[in-house]
Parts: sequence; C-alpha cells; structure tokens
Amino acid sequence: MVKRGLIVGRFQPFHKGHLHVVKHILKEVDEIIIVIGSAQHSHQLDNPFTTGERLLMIRRALEENGIPSTKFWLVPVPDTHIHMLWVSQVIGYTPKFEIIYTNEPLTKRLFQEAGFKVKPLPFYKRKIYSATQIRNRLLNGEDWETLVPQAVADTIKEIDGVKRMQELAKTDKV
Amino acid sequence: MVKRGLIVGRFQPFHKGHLHVVKHILKEVDEIIIVIGSAQHSHQLDNPFTTGERLLMIRRALEENGIPSTKFWLVPVPDTHIHMLWVSQVIGYTPKFEIIYTNEPLTKRLFQEAGFKVKPLPFYKRKIYSATQIRNRLLNGEDWETLVPQAVADTIKEIDGVKRMQELAKTDKV
Amino acid sequence: MVKRGLIVGRFQPFHKGHLHVVKHILKEVDEIIIVIGSAQHSHQLDNPFTTGERLLMIRRALEENGIPSTKFWLVPVPDTHIHMLWVSQVIGYTPKFEIIYTNEPLTKRLFQEAGFKVKPLPFYKRKIYSATQIRNRLLNGEDWETLVPQAVADTIKEIDGVKRMQELAKTDKV
Amino acid sequence: MVKRGLIVGRFQPFHKGHLHVVKHILKEVDEIIIVIGSAQHSHQLDNPFTTGERLLMIRRALEENGIPSTKFWLVPVPDTHIHMLWVSQVIGYTPKFEIIYTNEPLTKRLFQEAGFKVKPLPFYKRKIYSATQIRNRLLNGEDWETLVPQAVADTIKEIDGVKRMQELAKTDKV
Amino acid sequence: MVKRGLIVGRFQPFHKGHLHVVKHILKEVDEIIIVIGSAQHSHQLDNPFTTGERLLMIRRALEENGIPSTKFWLVPVPDTHIHMLWVSQVIGYTPKFEIIYTNEPLTKRLFQEAGFKVKPLPFYKRKIYSATQIRNRLLNGEDWETLVPQAVADTIKEIDGVKRMQELAKTDKV
Amino acid sequence: MVKRGLIVGRFQPFHKGHLHVVKHILKEVDEIIIVIGSAQHSHQLDNPFTTGERLLMIRRALEENGIPSTKFWLVPVPDTHIHMLWVSQVIGYTPKFEIIYTNEPLTKRLFQEAGFKVKPLPFYKRKIYSATQIRNRLLNGEDWETLVPQAVADTIKEIDGVKRMQELAKTDKV
Repeated sequence: MVKRGLIVGRFQPFHKGHLHVVKHILKEVDEIIIVIGSAQHSHQLDNPFTTGERLLMIRRALEENGIPSTKFWLVPVPDTHIHMLWVSQVIGYTPKFEIIYTNEPLTKRLFQEAGFKVKPLPFYKRKIYSATQIRNRLLNGEDWETLVPQAVADTIKEIDGVKRMQELAKTDKV
Repeated sequence: MVKRGLIVGRFQPFHKGHLHVVKHILKEVDEIIIVIGSAQHSHQLDNPFTTGERLLMIRRALEENGIPSTKFWLVPVPDTHIHMLWVSQVIGYTPKFEIIYTNEPLTKRLFQEAGFKVKPLPFYKRKIYSATQIRNRLLNGEDWETLVPQAVADTIKEIDGVKRMQELAKTDKV
Repeated sequence: MVKRGLIVGRFQPFHKGHLHVVKHILKEVDEIIIVIGSAQHSHQLDNPFTTGERLLMIRRALEENGIPSTKFWLVPVPDTHIHMLWVSQVIGYTPKFEIIYTNEPLTKRLFQEAGFKVKPLPFYKRKIYSATQIRNRLLNGEDWETLVPQAVADTIKEIDGVKRMQELAKTDKV
Repeated sequence: MVKRGLIVGRFQPFHKGHLHVVKHILKEVDEIIIVIGSAQHSHQLDNPFTTGERLLMIRRALEENGIPSTKFWLVPVPDTHIHMLWVSQVIGYTPKFEIIYTNEPLTKRLFQEAGFKVKPLPFYKRKIYSATQIRNRLLNGEDWETLVPQAVADTIKEIDGVKRMQELAKTDKV
Repeated sequence: MVKRGLIVGRFQPFHKGHLHVVKHILKEVDEIIIVIGSAQHSHQLDNPFTTGERLLMIRRALEENGIPSTKFWLVPVPDTHIHMLWVSQVIGYTPKFEIIYTNEPLTKRLFQEAGFKVKPLPFYKRKIYSATQIRNRLLNGEDWETLVPQAVADTIKEIDGVKRMQELAKTDKV
Repeated sequence: MVKRGLIVGRFQPFHKGHLHVVKHILKEVDEIIIVIGSAQHSHQLDNPFTTGERLLMIRRALEENGIPSTKFWLVPVPDTHIHMLWVSQVIGYTPKFEIIYTNEPLTKRLFQEAGFKVKPLPFYKRKIYSATQIRNRLLNGEDWETLVPQAVADTIKEIDGVKRMQELAKTDKV
C-alpha cells in the first residue's frame, strides 16, 4: 500500500521554504499530494498567479531539484468558503492519503476533527521564505529571485509576472 | 390564527441576552421563529459553532428555562450574500410570521422595504451580554460561563468548544 | 449520552408513510433528526412546498400524533448538488447522530463510505404512501387527504396548496 | 408617475410574436421592461444566443418597428434556480413596475403570491411564432426568417448564428 | 460596422464625472456600453442602490443631457468573484465592442491580457466627482446634489435614498 | 517553446480509447494536458468516480504504458455550468496550450469562437471503447476489464468501484 502525505497551500508563489517542506515529507511517505488551494483565484495582489501558472512553476521546480514526478501529485482545488465542507472537498479531489502536514491552525483543526493524523511542517527560515514577503519584494523591486527555486523565477519572468503584480498594485483612487 | 414573531441571529453562541429577548417576544406573540443565520459557517473565529451545535445549545437553553418547544421554531438559514434576496430567503425557510424583531439596521431596513412590521429588541445589559464579548472571553480564558445559560455552557464544554476556538485563534504567521 | 437517528427526505408532502417511519425509529433511538432536504426548492411540481410550509406540516402532524417535540429535530438543509460534500453538509447542520435510516441507494452509499451505521426503513404500504402518488392525486383531483396526517391536509388547505400545484401544472405551450 | 409593465422571456430568439406582445403592452402602460432571462446561458440548443446578442437583436427589432427606445428597458437577469427568490431578483434588477404580463404558469403564480397584478399576454399565432419552432427550423434548414423581425434575421446572420446552432446540434456519440 | 467602447462601473451613484466620461467616449466611438457592475449588490454602504435604481438614474441623466438612447447600452452584470472569468462574463453579457476605457488597474490588466485595446479615462476633478465622496456626503448631510446630474438627485430623492443610506449606516453595536 | 495540446474528458472511467488518443496527440505535441472535467462530481451513475480516483487511474494507466509523467499534465477542473465562461475556466486552470483536440461539438465551437486551433480526435473502435458502454457493462456484470488499461481495472477493484456503481443503480422506488 502506497503511503501518502498531503499539504495544502496557495503557492503564490512556490518558494524555497515550500521546496524544503516537500523534501522533508518525502522522507516520511512514499508520495506527496500538493493541493493548490484557492485554485479559482488569480490576478489579485495576494493571489497573483493562475492555477495553470502555479502548476508550471511547482512541477518545474520539483523536477529541477531531482524529485521524480512519480513521487508527487499536483492537485488544484477551488475554495468551498464553507469550513464544514473543506475536508470532504480535499478528500474528493485527491488520491487516498494517510497524513496531512500543516502548521495552519484551521486546516489542522478541521482535519483533526475529521479523524486524520496531522503532523507539523518543519520550520525553515520562515521570516525569509514567506510568500507574502516575496510578493512584497516583487512589488518593491527588491531581490526576490534568491528566495524561489530557479525554475519559479524563470516561470514568473516568462509570464511577465512582476509587471502583472506591479500593475495590479497601482491604484486609480485619488 | 397563530401570531408569530421572528428574530435573526448567528447565536455564536446563544447567551443570556438572547434568552431575555426570546422571553420578551413571547409576551407579545404566540410563537417565536428563531432564524439561525449564516447557517453554512462554522470553525471561524467569528462563527465558531456549526448549525448543529447551535441548534443543540439553543433548544437546551430554552427547555432549561421552561419555554415549551411548541412556542418556538429553530430554523437554520444559509446566507444569500445578496441583500435584495434576503427577505425572500427568510420567508421561504420559515412558517408565516407577522412581526420581525431586530435592532440591526440592515435587517430592519430590508424588512421595512418589504412591508413588514419591524419592532426593536429590548436592550438588556448589551455591553456584557454580547456574543463578541463572550467569544473574546472564551479565547482569553476569562469567565464566560456566567454570560450564557447553563445548557449553553454545558454544550460548549461537551463539544470541546473552548479548545476549538483557541486553536483557531493560533497563527502560523511569523 | 443521547442516541439519535437521522432521516433525510423532501417531504413534499409529509405523509402517513413518513409518520410510520418516525414512530418506528423512535422505538430504537432517543431522538430523531428529520432533515428537510432540498430546502431551497419550492413552487416546482416535484417540490411544491416551501421549507416553512414543510416545517409547519411536519411539526403539526407529529404533535397531533402524540410525539413530543423534545423527541424530534426538524432541520432544513439546502442541496449541495455535489455528492462528495453531502455527508459533511448534513453533519454540519445537525446535532450529533449515530445512525442514519434510509432505503435510498445514494444516501446509503454516501453515509456508508463515511463510516456511518446505516439501517433500512420499514416498508409501509409504499405503493400507496408515496409523495409522488400524493402529488399526482392532488393534481388530478383524486382523494389525497386520507394518505396524509390530518394536520398535513389542513396545512395544505390553509396555504391553498392544491390550487398552487394545479396552477404550476398548467402549461402555456401549444 | 410612470406606469410600467414587465415581461420575462429568454428570447432565443426574439420573434414576431414577441414584437406583437410588446406593442400590445405599450398600449396599456407608459414603459415596458423586457427582462432577458437566463442571462448567463448561451451556446446551448435551447439557449443558443448570448445576452449581448439578444440585447442587439431586440433593440434593433424594436427600433426598426418604430418603438422609441425611451419606451422600453432591456434588462438581462441571470437565473437564481430557486423559485422562492425569483421575484426579488427581478425586482432588484429592474425599475419599479406595476403589472407583470405573462402566460407562463410559474411566473404567474410567483408574482401573484408576491402581491403583483398579473395580466395575460395576447395570443398571436402561437403555433407559428414560437422560439422552439424557430430554433427547429434554423437547425433543419427550413424557412425561419419570415418568423422574426428583419433586424433579428440580420443579427443572427451577422453573428453566424445558424452555423453555431447546427454545430451545437451535431453529436460525437456513435 | 458600428464601433463600440465599453466602461465598467458600479455607479453608486452615477455622478457628473461619469457623465463627463460618457460624453468623452462618445466622441471616439459610435456607441458606448455602460456595464453596471456588482449588479447583484444593493443595500450596502458601498453599494446602496439596486440595479433597477441605477438603471433609472443613469438613463434619466443621459437623456437629460441630450445623449440619445440609441448611443448607449446599459447592461447590468453580476460579479463572478473570479478574475480569470471576468472578461468572458463581460463579453457574454454585452454587444460586441472594440475598446475598453478604464483607469482601474485590475480591469485594465485583465482586458489587456485578453487582447483588448484599453484606453484611459479622462480625469475630471476626480477628488470631487467621486462616488465614495458623494456617499460620504449623503451620510453626513453635506451637499451632494451638485455633484450628480439633476436626474440622479431626483431619483435618489424619489426612492428615499438618503434615508436608506443613513439607516444602513446606523449600528446596533455598543 | 514547449508545444502543448489539451483534451477535456470526464474519464468515467479512463479507457483504452482514451489511451489511444493520448498516444496519438503525443506524436504531434511535446506535452498533453488532460483536463478532468466535472471534477466536482462523483457517486452518480454517469459520474461514479471522484477526481482523486480518476487521477489515480489515469496516471497509473499512462505510466503502465510507458508514457513518462513529464509528458502529461492531469488537471481537474470543476464545471462552470455557464458556457460563456468555460474556455476562460480551462485557460485559468492549465499551463499554456496551443491546440485543443476534441470531437465534442460544444467544446469545439467554444474554443473555435475563442480563437483556438481545434483538431479532431482519431476514432478508435468508438462503439466499443466508450465510457457509457463500460459503465453499462460494469452494472450488468458483463466483461469490462478488457476495455480499460490494466491499471484502471486494478484501481476500480481497489476502490470497490463495481459495488459502488451497482449500489447507486439500485432503486427504492416501487
């Protein structure tokens, strides 16, 4: 029986902290399921990238780091906005899993109430490797490339992601 | 013809102020319809309890206070998020009613525009008997039990509600 | 610990077969939860009555038959239309239950997969006591009153339900 | 005070029967509100045209027939799929109206229950001037142009509507 | 071929700045499509007016200013809340257009990514002619009438809009 | 630049005809995007399997047939139910693609209107390799295993899929 662990994230964008987590989990399970949450959102300052773009950046980053594609599943899942339904939504969209890895209090609580085994994520320079931090740097023209895997940086450039974010950050309010 | 009055609340949780209101209204009408709003929400800091849990705590509290179950209706109603539809949603989910009791400006306005008779709720130590206040106390480990009917306190303990709220209040942000 | 059994139905309308089922279940559990499904629907030939009207007819019928209101819960639940979410939706809207009673294959399967104990409903003259049958009789002006509890017949008359159904059955197609 | 009458239709497509109805109603009221229902649907055999296309064909047809644009309102309204909400949805999307004109039993019933004055539409060669009939003719390559106002025929050709319908009618089933 | 330009706004309410924009655009295109966004919302402090009320105030204001109704389209469009779908939603609800006029960064970006020609709106005393500003003045009892076309002021009075806003602004929080 | 082709299917279940199509397309493009449509549905006679189950059966089948996982993308996409939004939904959920392969008339038409290159699928014994056919055989206890890749048959057995379908096919109607 294949043993699977699952993580949920928005990956806006996928960064080196995420990569560290994936590697860590793959030491404990056979396969990791990476749920791309808020799959329906994009073009927001907090959710700049589409699901298609996030699929691309994550898969390339994992391949680039020598993680065989047979070891991970990338599964976009749209929000339900209704917490009582969230665990069932995740179960319905994904191959069977045994463990969920999370530090996020709501996710932890919901899966625990549903009877799942929940394990914490290893911390890895969280002040630096944070998606919020990276989005701020993207907006402010500060260095962000060193915080993400090379393939993610390449993808963001390829889709002209910096310009998109900077345009979304403009305002027409006076 | 049975005369019914209706109130709308989220009852997160149901407290002694709510109980006071129910008793007050039952002096004026034959039956009270208690609409449990935002029925779809739970596991949020502002909406910690499920509809099932709220049904349980309200019915037990009313029974405990000698209000016969033939005098009240508990009706969960999910949000429409669209104000122009809200009155129709409430009408469709509930037995026919004549009066709506509310101090909430939006509810008051919507039902007035729809031609309903709207009456204010009696104030009852509102600074103390407030659901927001009680949730804060729950989180901070302060006394909250004296603010709710005994049956509500028992229900919250039975479902381990304090721990749920405290876990939801944690953060994984650095 | 209170032992609860749950049934799901649309109760369009509630009939003597349903009443028989409720009495049967109450021999096995302390309390019955009656989920009023498709709560959002009304004014359709298959779903003529609103949730408010169904609440009224069911509660009156149970009271009329001597079932104390402390023994049953009436809980309207709107459809999710997504089967993978249905069990969670029901769990979220209702007080905790141990057994679900159903003969409906989908409901049975979904709750079984979720680990619930599922028991069959007792058959009771099903060809006669059928909501579809009763709606047809209502439309065709045949006897329907003897198939429903007196309180249901009274409620349908009170809300002019026969006329509503007959009007909905008309067509403007040539 | 301006007196307004309202009709609801899908207008897939708008035909000479509809035109006849509009002229008839404008003899009784100052302004007609034409609600374009199922506004969200298109590219279905029963709903081939988008709302934008329907707006275009109706306005052109009315102008062509000398009905001043100050006399009519074209208002797209998406379905709620929930009958208890439909009247409120229509009220919220439209300028205030006094009368609704309809032969459709559900619409008639819903607006009557909401307290509106409902009047029947005049019949006008309904076997011929029927949107279903016209869609069938479009599909089968039979004459359909004489059943719609010239401007509608022109619009359908302009957007290549016949080809769209014929393509949608194909099947890849064996 | 008719050349059309499109603007999107919530028009809560339509003011003289909007009127200026409409006139400006009509110098460049044959027809303007005015998309009334957030069509589903009303009775909120930020969205006080229904779509029906907004249709009324805009059409009256344009007529009053001598803009023939053959030159503009008023098209209510409900939110999708999902940015990747917004451009398609607008396309589906409106007659074909060539140019979109906007200063709003998100709208600009989404339509540019979809390959549309996007042009900026002319600025016109934006600090004064701002819907937010006008709503604040309405609430505070300051002069707002001079900021909107006469017909808009009349419509707001006719529907008792000032009172609605002031009631919505009340609070029952202590 | 990577050249991608896209197909949309429900894959209830994935069969040898689908496999044939995937191999065919991979001769023409670098990567194939397999959109798992109606991702939200399961436990229906027409949609028996969850998205998670379909992901599992497709990936295993492709691996078993020597198609490297770097050559394909599996992307679940929920229905919009609104045809005007479907192409944008697919674009938002998937990596950039150039060609869509389909024989389905609606999909073909929608992508053509959106300016995409659409190519037909090669026919491959369609009367036999049909998901409808296979679901019927599953229900009737006829041979179905030879119509699907070995890995799909194994997955269906592993999740007890035959029993699920047979239970869903039962009826409680008399």
